[in-house]
Amino acid sequence: MILDHRQSSQEEKTMNVLWVFAHPERSSLTAALRDEGIAALTEAGHEVMLSDLYAMKWNPIVDADNFTENSGERLHVAEASKRAYQSGTLSPDIRAEQEKLDRADAVVFQFPLWWFGMPAIMKGWVDRVFVKGYAYGIPDPDHPGRTLRYGHRMLSGKRALTVVTIGGPESTYGPRGINGQLDQVLFPLLHGTFWYVGIASVPPVAVYRSDKLSDEQFQDAARLVRERVLSIADTETIPYRYQNYGDYTDDLTVRPDLVPDVTGLAAHYSA
Amino acid sequence: MILDHRQSSQEEKTMNVLWVFAHPERSSLTAALRDEGIAALTEAGHEVMLSDLYAMKWNPIVDADNFTENSGERLHVAEASKRAYQSGTLSPDIRAEQEKLDRADAVVFQFPLWWFGMPAIMKGWVDRVFVKGYAYGIPDPDHPGRTLRYGHRMLSGKRALTVVTIGGPESTYGPRGINGQLDQVLFPLLHGTFWYVGIASVPPVAVYRSDKLSDEQFQDAARLVRERVLSIADTETIPYRYQNYGDYTDDLTVRPDLVPDVTGLAAHYSA
Repeated sequence: MILDHRQSSQEEKTMNVLWVFAHPERSSLTAALRDEGIAALTEAGHEVMLSDLYAMKWNPIVDADNFTENSGERLHVAEASKRAYQSGTLSPDIRAEQEKLDRADAVVFQFPLWWFGMPAIMKGWVDRVFVKGYAYGIPDPDHPGRTLRYGHRMLSGKRALTVVTIGGPESTYGPRGINGQLDQVLFPLLHGTFWYVGIASVPPVAVYRSDKLSDEQFQDAARLVRERVLSIADTETIPYRYQNYGDYTDDLTVRPDLVPDVTGLAAHYSA
Repeated sequence: MILDHRQSSQEEKTMNVLWVFAHPERSSLTAALRDEGIAALTEAGHEVMLSDLYAMKWNPIVDADNFTENSGERLHVAEASKRAYQSGTLSPDIRAEQEKLDRADAVVFQFPLWWFGMPAIMKGWVDRVFVKGYAYGIPDPDHPGRTLRYGHRMLSGKRALTVVTIGGPESTYGPRGINGQLDQVLFPLLHGTFWYVGIASVPPVAVYRSDKLSDEQFQDAARLVRERVLSIADTETIPYRYQNYGDYTDDLTVRPDLVPDVTGLAAHYSA
């Protein structure tokens, strides 16, 4: 856990940050906030690797072409990707992203919230980069029958910060807001993706009413993004439960004596 | 609400069904279940339109090329898509899908659950087809300051059935299962997408441990899919709250006297 061994704040350890970005318009507000965040990191001495998915014309489609030694046989996606990863025959664009991720201490994932999730191009980054054998699917030597996931895996030690721009107002993403409480709407990404592969998330940054910001509101949003990216290492991560250390029973449900009255996504927070 | 005016079950009204399908492998279990479902519908006299996204090489990317009269100006996605929709200059592949949707009484949305959501190619069907002016963004004449959404919109009257194939076991998607209660994991699709544009969902069909089904288990799954597609019109839909009929306050949070102790996604069910 590199980030837990930082020295005093006078002597901050520098981070390698992978910034994954998806927006089709170069002069968008979302892009302007990205530039602010990257400037803040760079000025503070951190290294930033940018994957600007639209600019890269990232291919979001999982198919047999992902595996350069595609045999033409019936495609089992998970197994084919594992074999390709292990034999070094994954498509080079996927390997390049994995290498960036390997070098990263932190990942910033930035996108406009489209239909309550990532734009397709970014979902396709997750679908293609997080292959079996690399991000999941490794047996846990200490827990026979289980794999290393939800808190444990080679990607653990890294942290993620999700930055979303949202058209609607904040109240509609609150605990009883009509669009759904934001951290629960993002559960498939924060828990089901990052935490699954061992990456702990700090609470996401959301910029609301992003289509209607005044200059002053933009400055506030830019300040928020700058502060949050600079404090990734110091911010408490979302306390999702670990899979393999007692919180879940053998059928992988929350142990009955823990939060006994809670069902739904809230049951998976340990605090 | 066409589907509420059916005659007796001896004299079923036929449905037009749009089946949107995403899987890269033609001989997959997911594809075999699709074939079963389509056969059941066709044998019963229903019409099926199939959008097989991989076979169609569907383009999942929202960008300026979606709008055939792209002006080269800064792209505001929602507004550009609305103008293009209204002026008939949306990309022809998008219009073709909208025309199928217009003819459909019911939509079947079938995919393998990848990272707790749709494969990128299918997310890109949603991102591109449900444009402003077509699927949302129309002012509600009866409720000044609000738009027609969450239960109300031109797409209302239609029903959706989501069919997902899932590698893990059922217990892990239950109320306290580690992967998250399935209907809440799918909230961005069932509530945030379908219900948002006025399409009511019947409860999804999930086929668990889909990588490991015996022949007998496959037959069970096929029977389940056949039954569920044939009963789309008769199945109770998920009772999400309507936006504009009293359940939400002016700031679009659930009225304080309704389920006062509930927060999170469960607050948006009226029963």
